[in-house]
Amino acid sequence: MASQPEPVRIVEVGPRDGLQNEPVPVPTATKRAFVERLVAAGLREIEVTSFVHPKLVPQLADAAELCAGLPAAPGVRYSALAPNEKGLERALAAGVQRVAVFTAASETFAQRNINMSIDESLRTFAEVARRALAAGVSVRGYLSTCFVCPFEGHIAAARVLDLTQRLLDIGCDEVAISDTIGAAAPRDVAETVGLVLSRVPAAKLALHFHDTYGTALANVVAGLQLGIRTFDASAGGLGGCPFAPGAAGNLATEDLVYLLERMGHPTGVRLDAVVAAAGLISQHTGRPLASRNARRLGGDHACAAV
Amino acid sequence: MASQPEPVRIVEVGPRDGLQNEPVPVPTATKRAFVERLVAAGLREIEVTSFVHPKLVPQLADAAELCAGLPAAPGVRYSALAPNEKGLERALAAGVQRVAVFTAASETFAQRNINMSIDESLRTFAEVARRALAAGVSVRGYLSTCFVCPFEGHIAAARVLDLTQRLLDIGCDEVAISDTIGAAAPRDVAETVGLVLSRVPAAKLALHFHDTYGTALANVVAGLQLGIRTFDASAGGLGGCPFAPGAAGNLATEDLVYLLERMGHPTGVRLDAVVAAAGLISQHTGRPLASRNARRLGGDHACAAV
Repeated sequence: MASQPEPVRIVEVGPRDGLQNEPVPVPTATKRAFVERLVAAGLREIEVTSFVHPKLVPQLADAAELCAGLPAAPGVRYSALAPNEKGLERALAAGVQRVAVFTAASETFAQRNINMSIDESLRTFAEVARRALAAGVSVRGYLSTCFVCPFEGHIAAARVLDLTQRLLDIGCDEVAISDTIGAAAPRDVAETVGLVLSRVPAAKLALHFHDTYGTALANVVAGLQLGIRTFDASAGGLGGCPFAPGAAGNLATEDLVYLLERMGHPTGVRLDAVVAAAGLISQHTGRPLASRNARRLGGDHACAAV
Repeated sequence: MASQPEPVRIVEVGPRDGLQNEPVPVPTATKRAFVERLVAAGLREIEVTSFVHPKLVPQLADAAELCAGLPAAPGVRYSALAPNEKGLERALAAGVQRVAVFTAASETFAQRNINMSIDESLRTFAEVARRALAAGVSVRGYLSTCFVCPFEGHIAAARVLDLTQRLLDIGCDEVAISDTIGAAAPRDVAETVGLVLSRVPAAKLALHFHDTYGTALANVVAGLQLGIRTFDASAGGLGGCPFAPGAAGNLATEDLVYLLERMGHPTGVRLDAVVAAAGLISQHTGRPLASRNARRLGGDHACAAV
């Protein structure tokens, strides 16, 4: 574990991953205020929306309007998902600086989530990436279900390595190895990410964890031990499946910030300001934030204890 | 990380640590049913109560009655806190098989929590331990605030080593290194527990984490990497400070079980049964369980996601 200060990059995905399944419509002005507060909290990379077809994800139908109104801030990079060429066109028209494409390490999950085979998705995204890069826009790749698939179970590490390389080959400058259902434990991270690192430099990888079983922060530590220095997180732990009342969403940005700072990795992010930012969404949806630090900041009384 | 199955011992502290600050009175029969379900879930070491003065912790005033009614189960060991000689007498009369004594690594915390200096507490507990051992009852030691004290801040690892040895010297067969306010991160665990292990065998140590900042499971992994094989946990994540509405309590047993099983360490504990056991308390207090797995089991709907 690092004893020298070594910065870690946090990619904030709350506005996109945290809101894409949100059943309560969130007004564009609220989303914009959320993003503005995330910037003020110190976050520098923010995935703000997805240019998916509005009928598929009505929650993000205001993607163009949201992007048009975001504050220009020095050193801050906004990104958005571009699920196809039409989505890319909209993203480029909206002035997005970075787009993300996505496939899965599980064939069944790819079919169910994006209605394409993995090969089809890579052909589609190769063209999206080519056009994005031609327009001067960089491309991130997401690889879903890298550890456990809800349909196929365990995913072989070799498949994750292969698909990571293919995403880099089509022009992604970074691949987010994603534990979509949040089932991985540090041993899975060591095995799978360890294999990927045998062929891919750490600087081209991010880790994207969900906290369904409580293992997300432990998995981050496993990633740190492997040399990974980029982690995705969602303010307030927003995300996950809102139809399951208590289902945990993404790893919470504020919990990640606490861990990283305590481990000696400066983040430049103020965790209380992240909680306050996510509070805008929580106030609107009426659902409390699930993160440990949001709960901790909800009260401050001393109790005797062992 | 272990690839061979290597069992890990879980010390369930929910009935004591989880209920000692509970503002809603829990009937003895409910506590007994809770313990019975914990046994049925596969837990084999359960700290059921504290023989503290009833005026100090009225929540546990029924300690003798509770202990008298517990089911005898082969291989199951019940323990209770014995905060002084009077408490030990009551514990022995109630037929407890194991008692626990406790001091702190922070002088200020010891004064505020047990109203004794550390030296005074060790003199008191030396006599408690002597008499317990003479009666054929084994003794566990808790060492609070081993990483961060709410009053003194950072606690030196050398102090934790010294006090661990002194607790072993007075007759404890195991010391639970405790992160009382839940502020430690894996680097703290590596530093402090690593130093303790330079002089004390792993078999004499347990780790006791609270999940205030979300780091408890990551800290468990740090402990596993150091060779620790005993961890405390509380069913449902019960405990912590109930006056802070959302404050996280102890590391939740079910989250620990998920992590350990996924890491290849068999526990013999069924996590859904642990959640159901804790549900008895949750139903009574009206407060939802805070653990990730309890929340996950609260609903089961599929959502598309990256």
